Amino acid sequence: MPTDWKTLCNEKRSRLYDSIPREWIIPYLSIKEHPNVLNVPAKSGLLTRRELMITDTEDVDVILERLRTGEWTSLETTKAFCKRATIAHQLTNCLTEIFVERTLERAKELDDILASTGKVVGPLHGLPVSLKDQFTLKGLETVMGYVSGIGDYAEEDSVIVQILYECGAVPFVRTNVPQTLMWGETYNHVFGRTLNPYNRSLTPGGSSGGEGALLAMKGSPLGVGTDIGGSLRIPSVFCGLYTLRPSYARLPYCGSKNAMPGQESISSVLGPMTNTLSGLKVFMKAVIGAKPWNLDPVTIRKPWDEDAWNLSEHGGIGAQLCFAIMWDNGVVKPHPPLIRAMAMTKAALEDAGHKVIEWEPHRHLEIYKNAESIFAADGNHDYKTECAKSGEPLIKTMVPSHSEEVAAGYEFEPPMSLVKTFLGDPAEHISTYDLFKLHEEKRDLRKSHLDHWQKTISRTGTGRPVDAIISPAVAYTAVPHGLNTDSFYTTLCNAMDYTASAFPVTFVDPKLDVPFEPHNFYNHEDKAIYQLYESHLFDGCPVGLQLIGKTLEEEAVLRLTSIVDEALQQWRAKKTEMSHKN
Amino acid sequence: MPTDWKTLCNEKRSRLYDSIPREWIIPYLSIKEHPNVLNVPAKSGLLTRRELMITDTEDVDVILERLRTGEWTSLETTKAFCKRATIAHQLTNCLTEIFVERTLERAKELDDILASTGKVVGPLHGLPVSLKDQFTLKGLETVMGYVSGIGDYAEEDSVIVQILYECGAVPFVRTNVPQTLMWGETYNHVFGRTLNPYNRSLTPGGSSGGEGALLAMKGSPLGVGTDIGGSLRIPSVFCGLYTLRPSYARLPYCGSKNAMPGQESISSVLGPMTNTLSGLKVFMKAVIGAKPWNLDPVTIRKPWDEDAWNLSEHGGIGAQLCFAIMWDNGVVKPHPPLIRAMAMTKAALEDAGHKVIEWEPHRHLEIYKNAESIFAADGNHDYKTECAKSGEPLIKTMVPSHSEEVAAGYEFEPPMSLVKTFLGDPAEHISTYDLFKLHEEKRDLRKSHLDHWQKTISRTGTGRPVDAIISPAVAYTAVPHGLNTDSFYTTLCNAMDYTASAFPVTFVDPKLDVPFEPHNFYNHEDKAIYQLYESHLFDGCPVGLQLIGKTLEEEAVLRLTSIVDEALQQWRAKKTEMSHKN
Repeated sequence: MPTDWKTLCNEKRSRLYDSIPREWIIPYLSIKEHPNVLNVPAKSGLLTRRELMITDTEDVDVILERLRTGEWTSLETTKAFCKRATIAHQLTNCLTEIFVERTLERAKELDDILASTGKVVGPLHGLPVSLKDQFTLKGLETVMGYVSGIGDYAEEDSVIVQILYECGAVPFVRTNVPQTLMWGETYNHVFGRTLNPYNRSLTPGGSSGGEGALLAMKGSPLGVGTDIGGSLRIPSVFCGLYTLRPSYARLPYCGSKNAMPGQESISSVLGPMTNTLSGLKVFMKAVIGAKPWNLDPVTIRKPWDEDAWNLSEHGGIGAQLCFAIMWDNGVVKPHPPLIRAMAMTKAALEDAGHKVIEWEPHRHLEIYKNAESIFAADGNHDYKTECAKSGEPLIKTMVPSHSEEVAAGYEFEPPMSLVKTFLGDPAEHISTYDLFKLHEEKRDLRKSHLDHWQKTISRTGTGRPVDAIISPAVAYTAVPHGLNTDSFYTTLCNAMDYTASAFPVTFVDPKLDVPFEPHNFYNHEDKAIYQLYESHLFDGCPVGLQLIGKTLEEEAVLRLTSIVDEALQQWRAKKTEMSHKN
Repeated sequence: MPTDWKTLCNEKRSRLYDSIPREWIIPYLSIKEHPNVLNVPAKSGLLTRRELMITDTEDVDVILERLRTGEWTSLETTKAFCKRATIAHQLTNCLTEIFVERTLERAKELDDILASTGKVVGPLHGLPVSLKDQFTLKGLETVMGYVSGIGDYAEEDSVIVQILYECGAVPFVRTNVPQTLMWGETYNHVFGRTLNPYNRSLTPGGSSGGEGALLAMKGSPLGVGTDIGGSLRIPSVFCGLYTLRPSYARLPYCGSKNAMPGQESISSVLGPMTNTLSGLKVFMKAVIGAKPWNLDPVTIRKPWDEDAWNLSEHGGIGAQLCFAIMWDNGVVKPHPPLIRAMAMTKAALEDAGHKVIEWEPHRHLEIYKNAESIFAADGNHDYKTECAKSGEPLIKTMVPSHSEEVAAGYEFEPPMSLVKTFLGDPAEHISTYDLFKLHEEKRDLRKSHLDHWQKTISRTGTGRPVDAIISPAVAYTAVPHGLNTDSFYTTLCNAMDYTASAFPVTFVDPKLDVPFEPHNFYNHEDKAIYQLYESHLFDGCPVGLQLIGKTLEEEAVLRLTSIVDEALQQWRAKKTEMSHKN
């Protein structure tokens, strides 16, 4: 008789727990008394001062430099991050696979090579890298949020993992995802729920939510996630991180597990998540530099373009740029902290000598509906097939059950009007011909949106169309579990295949972020989102934005994001200086 | 009451006939007495000596140089090609739109700009370019082989046409295609059948067969066609031309009409067809140089790569290369002239100092079946919908009717075992989920085939995998109308998205190309194709091959093709010299 799916989940969870070295187990901290756990690692006493110094180093370039020069060994660096990751896991439930012994062996090998040859293996030499639970590692299970994934031991590394090895990296933990991957939160029957370390009664977002929580805890210097409707950007802005959503097929997805693996209409893409911008570039350059198209037939043969990085299509380095801000996409109005973050960014960019104009939203809702229709085109047949393998039910809401709430010590009554229930039964399982019609509609929308963008040339004064769009990634900051209904801002980029980054700007401050007066609500969701805003609920949460470039503009988007990031840093420094003067 | 579809066809054909200037009408020549019509333009007396000299100039670089320097005006050049194109049309039925007045106006404009500014408008200044009947031109109908296309006047130029104008080209005629575009021949209810000028009882191939016939007649210096299963390469090898099938989305398809326009699983691509290699490069460089991704959101942002053109991934210019020859794909064995062409190419490359090894076919039939299943996935719903608009029937065979044969003076009894009948009723109209499964299979096949290619590194001795594969594009040369059943050799590249060129090698010579002994036939089609070979039937027909590179290797494939082409020229020159000595 096949084992009951609940038993399988219990066994897998036990195996995961057992894979944590006993000496790294920390005492239980209740959510109610310890909602924010960011400083637990420092106070746990488990990390040495040196391990804290290593893991507190956010700049990936700095870490790599110290590894290259031998100032830090990969072994000690990796061990420090392993420790901190397992602490993060005990607080936020962010991991799905922990394999310390294998990891440290790999790190030791790299140290030996550097010691004996004087040369690094590759551009990521010695760097621990965490992986979303889709990227297969030979000999390990890839659960990917489904009970059916238990026992699915990989015979091969996925291509991105092969390349990370080739680049000298140390893949060291895998991180949690939601069942189906199609949620902006992180909960499944096997591993349960991942929590936001800024406030554990809030979601870290999803589907790369395990990465979000882990990186916010500084349990990893660099993580790899994926994005089909916002799954890199949502957890990044909810957890105060940087990410890049590359365009379709710029990076190699081959050999990784995926939901709806044959769905090629709006492709999932992989990308890096990290605590400082430097990590995004080093990852992109390293992976592309490894010529992934020789291992993955779908990856676009497009070498790292140094001219594009030097903004050749944007007037060159030093040119005045023109950004457009999407204050409101006309579908759901962002919460006050998001508006403040955009105002800050505008001020910072103008201070830096750049132009900022308003983005006029274009067919936003049509684009969203087209994308949602494509995601539902198989009538959820893929999800149901995957669930049927084990007998687990399809999860229809991310709202915690009453018993989960009691156990976790949450006290939150969700406004039911906000609860998203899964498209458990979409209208129909459509035919190939009807899917083709959706493709035609999608391409027409892409053409229309691109033309709209190109026409901004009349408003920029730079002789070019707008260089990038700055917009919320989500209309709000991290919300209570079960309430992240909105991917209106992120899905635009997946449907149009625009390259997009996300970057942190500030934190919610109830003194500054007072509720707005009600506006003329665009629709039911807009109203519900408006009503959700109570500033005390979100106090201290990270506020991030996205920067949107055109298709396959990875290099330029990274450079433009760094320009925005530096402008914000200088603006903040000036503000601080001014407030000291007053 | 709507007009009967046959009446609509008659009217459209009349309009086409009427668009030929009366003074360019030539006397009727029967097919029986004049199968080969290549020298009719020279003998017609319609073209002046200068016009003959201009249109006999095959090298596009030379034409462009003379236009740039003003040695030839665009007006006289365009007029010469217009004349020769209409002659070609009267002999082969290759055109669908003729618009001499508008064309000559455009040419005159370009001459005036050059005269007054001293500068060319772009890299294709003054060059007449013919277009397959999919590329919309503002104000003109785009019939694309369907009666429903009659009266479909375009409101906008397609993106490729916009770019051609921007580059200074003179779009000047449009060319015939088969109904549905999914045939390797060229016949539809509106315009009828296009004939091969080498032997009008043979097909020029398809679906870009109008271009094939026109270019073989030197009625155009450069044409633009499309390819989803071989539609650029089949007419090119049947008509003695060069072509390049770029990878998906390297060139802008946006705004062009297409069959199954929402089918994105195996995408149709556009590419150039021409009489000498120089035309392919100048076209690719010009179109890519115009940054088509700013007009077409689907086109890959990938500038012309001069390093790739200089074979950076193939050891650099001057390095010893290793080619693999696909003598037989294990599905259908090529006819004797194809085997001889490959042997010639092998000898020429070895003479030039390169290595040549044997290509081991890999899962060829599986790949073909997967592609055919994808093409049939909508249960022909798209074709039926298009036919239903006018009431015309779906064409189920390309074999001429008895009455057409009588009228045309053919005398050919097709071996019925060879006749392809259209997948008029494929097994079923499949669901989105089943299409997704085909996508998964396709990606697995692509990965498997790429790995197979990469593994040739053990056999090449160059330290690299095989630089390119040389293979037949079709197992035979141009065949009698209705008998082109085979796309086994071309479809491989569409399914794997390999960049491929086609190039002419020689002509069928009954003395050299004697029938083979029967082999162990692989299947029914292999046997039928074997039985079709009677060397006298194909006497004098062009024999071409394809050169296959990896995905998005347009620059390298062009350069490698030029290396093969030059090696063949030198080899031929040496042979001639030797035979003169003896």
